[in-house]
Amino acid sequence: MSEVREKSSLAKGTLVTLNRLTAAEKNDALMKMADALIEEQHSIIAANQEDLERGRANGTSSSLLDRLALNESRIAGMAEGLRQIVELPDPIGDELEHIERPNGLKIEKIRVPLGVIGIIYEARPNVTVDAAGLCLKTGNAVVLRGGSSAISSNKRIVEVLQQALANSAIPAAALQLIEDTNRASVDEMLKLNGLLDVVIPRGGASLIQNVVQNATVPVIETGAGICHTYLDATAKLDMAAPIVINAKVQRPSVCNSMETLLVHEDFAGAHLTSIAEQLRSNNVELRGCERTARYIQLDQNATEQDYATEYNDYILNIKVVNDLDEALEHIRQFGTMHSECIVTENAAHAERFLQEVDAAAVYHNASTRFTDGNEFGFGAEIGISTQKLHARGPMGLPALTSTKYRIYGTGQIRQ
Amino acid sequence: MSEVREKSSLAKGTLVTLNRLTAAEKNDALMKMADALIEEQHSIIAANQEDLERGRANGTSSSLLDRLALNESRIAGMAEGLRQIVELPDPIGDELEHIERPNGLKIEKIRVPLGVIGIIYEARPNVTVDAAGLCLKTGNAVVLRGGSSAISSNKRIVEVLQQALANSAIPAAALQLIEDTNRASVDEMLKLNGLLDVVIPRGGASLIQNVVQNATVPVIETGAGICHTYLDATAKLDMAAPIVINAKVQRPSVCNSMETLLVHEDFAGAHLTSIAEQLRSNNVELRGCERTARYIQLDQNATEQDYATEYNDYILNIKVVNDLDEALEHIRQFGTMHSECIVTENAAHAERFLQEVDAAAVYHNASTRFTDGNEFGFGAEIGISTQKLHARGPMGLPALTSTKYRIYGTGQIRQ
Repeated sequence: MSEVREKSSLAKGTLVTLNRLTAAEKNDALMKMADALIEEQHSIIAANQEDLERGRANGTSSSLLDRLALNESRIAGMAEGLRQIVELPDPIGDELEHIERPNGLKIEKIRVPLGVIGIIYEARPNVTVDAAGLCLKTGNAVVLRGGSSAISSNKRIVEVLQQALANSAIPAAALQLIEDTNRASVDEMLKLNGLLDVVIPRGGASLIQNVVQNATVPVIETGAGICHTYLDATAKLDMAAPIVINAKVQRPSVCNSMETLLVHEDFAGAHLTSIAEQLRSNNVELRGCERTARYIQLDQNATEQDYATEYNDYILNIKVVNDLDEALEHIRQFGTMHSECIVTENAAHAERFLQEVDAAAVYHNASTRFTDGNEFGFGAEIGISTQKLHARGPMGLPALTSTKYRIYGTGQIRQ
Repeated sequence: MSEVREKSSLAKGTLVTLNRLTAAEKNDALMKMADALIEEQHSIIAANQEDLERGRANGTSSSLLDRLALNESRIAGMAEGLRQIVELPDPIGDELEHIERPNGLKIEKIRVPLGVIGIIYEARPNVTVDAAGLCLKTGNAVVLRGGSSAISSNKRIVEVLQQALANSAIPAAALQLIEDTNRASVDEMLKLNGLLDVVIPRGGASLIQNVVQNATVPVIETGAGICHTYLDATAKLDMAAPIVINAKVQRPSVCNSMETLLVHEDFAGAHLTSIAEQLRSNNVELRGCERTARYIQLDQNATEQDYATEYNDYILNIKVVNDLDEALEHIRQFGTMHSECIVTENAAHAERFLQEVDAAAVYHNASTRFTDGNEFGFGAEIGISTQKLHARGPMGLPALTSTKYRIYGTGQIRQ
């Protein structure tokens, strides 16, 4: 039996036990996982050194090496993340509907775990801990498939967590790591209907596209974000400028940062030079349409391809539009249904934008950077769904659950 | 451009309009659709005759011809179905969550349409009307792909419904029928990411498996049901027998009927002959395990293959088990997560069964035949989901919706 199938079967074998656990038992296990990370931090850091050395030998970029690196403070952060998950209410067992039928049947709709969740992700080893904590808190088993660059760290982290689980009510086998980092192990997971209940990809666009294109297991698509901010004619400069700067430069590498700025021509005439100046002083390369070039100096013209690119970098497209309709049309064409913002003092325009833009999160007068489980008050997130099925936007614990109808009868039969 | 792509694009083009409609406007359109079916019933029946003649020429079975046949009474039933959908509350726009953050952001989670829904189905032309009504009521556009046996009926029905829509606020293009009944048109729909938001297959196991195996578009899997009834040691004969008979013979052809009866050995010793007699008098062929054969005469032994078969017919597997654990293990092995029942007077056993069995609907002391949108009080259903993502069990109108976060700010930026 392949590693993927064997470990997924082991994970599935724990579902009956997981399903019986109380919130207190699951929380106790998560606390033990957190403690074990701290106790074993030196062996984890040693394993991480292997990844870093391999990375340096392979010529990995310093920014990627930085994301991969673990130290005492980052491990403390991972443990703290688990303790925060402990604090969150356990959604399992919640009664979502209660129906009493004329024939006396009582029907309860109850939250239950999804089952076995496959997580396919890339470099950062903190995802290993996060995903394990969120899935186990919701009574799911989890099969992790991290990238090759972090494999030594991931192996050690999962060993440590499994040892902690061995002293808890959660079976250690509920947490599995696929150690084969060849592409074939991903492909096998994507077809493992009957063993995996869902696969969640976390990472770049090519990882996600591979999963969406090849999975027969249900998928929750996450991530890719070409987000827009539209400055309407009535936007105020002192509100618009901070929102634009924040959406672009506060953390350009993430999915909820802005890639294209749409500007009403009236606003552009009055204020685009000021906005551009602030962007430049934040090291943002500016690409723009022909009309934009009438107002400001551009680094280059923006092409259709640019409008369709998630830069995740200090680069911004700017397009001047005639009106709200043109802005909406641009977003329809190039948006990825992630996060979109309008800055305006016109309430009717705001309402139209929020109503018509088809995206997980639509903003009036706030930075798109807020699309995040913590910022929404969910306490934690497993990712940001950009699909419409099951969960949309930042996914907290309830996104990792399914439901089940429990029906209580006294001998009813159907007429 | 292919028919599938062209019609799906036309459907997608109506989303902005659909998204703006009020419940009253959508209900008005559905009433006009219902009226049009009655007004045009003779042309619909004439088109249906073409299907029936073609069916007879092709040697279609009489039971299939019966399911295909339309008459005034069945068309009246279809129109009445639309009027019942009108009566249901419109879930679109419902506020599911309201969050106020310390920084002043107001976050609303709102129900929105899914977008463009593809429905792939087989013979019965009433699905054409049902699916159109349910999807349009929830502000979705719909692309229907029915089977070749009903193509003349489906074409005429969709023409009639589109003509009705032309006099309503719903754009006629929001309802599309794929007339190409070759397998290639299904395959194309399954890969139409970006144009179709979800595909829902309704039909037999092979149709559903093809969709699940080949779709890159998100799928809601429906249907296949290998449902069990377990008669525990303490079950009462006068409750157990009617439940067993009802689950097997009230309508054997549907997914929530029983395929395998599990019987505790104590109950078998006391009552299996009586149960078997009643099943036989209802023309049920009995297959069973070796232990069953000690109590009753079987038509043949039940094989592993039998336990894994959805008969949808007057055939039943019977298996005698030692205890609840063996029953649970059998259901884990052969169940399809649809509907499962325990008949018992032992409250602890009932609770364990309802807790541990992983299925959309789990019953204590009632027939599995109740797994149905109308029986649950939903007023209508688009199908019964046997997957865990998005919707599970009978799917009413909310299953045809997604959500969206609307965020109201006053210039907030992320720290």
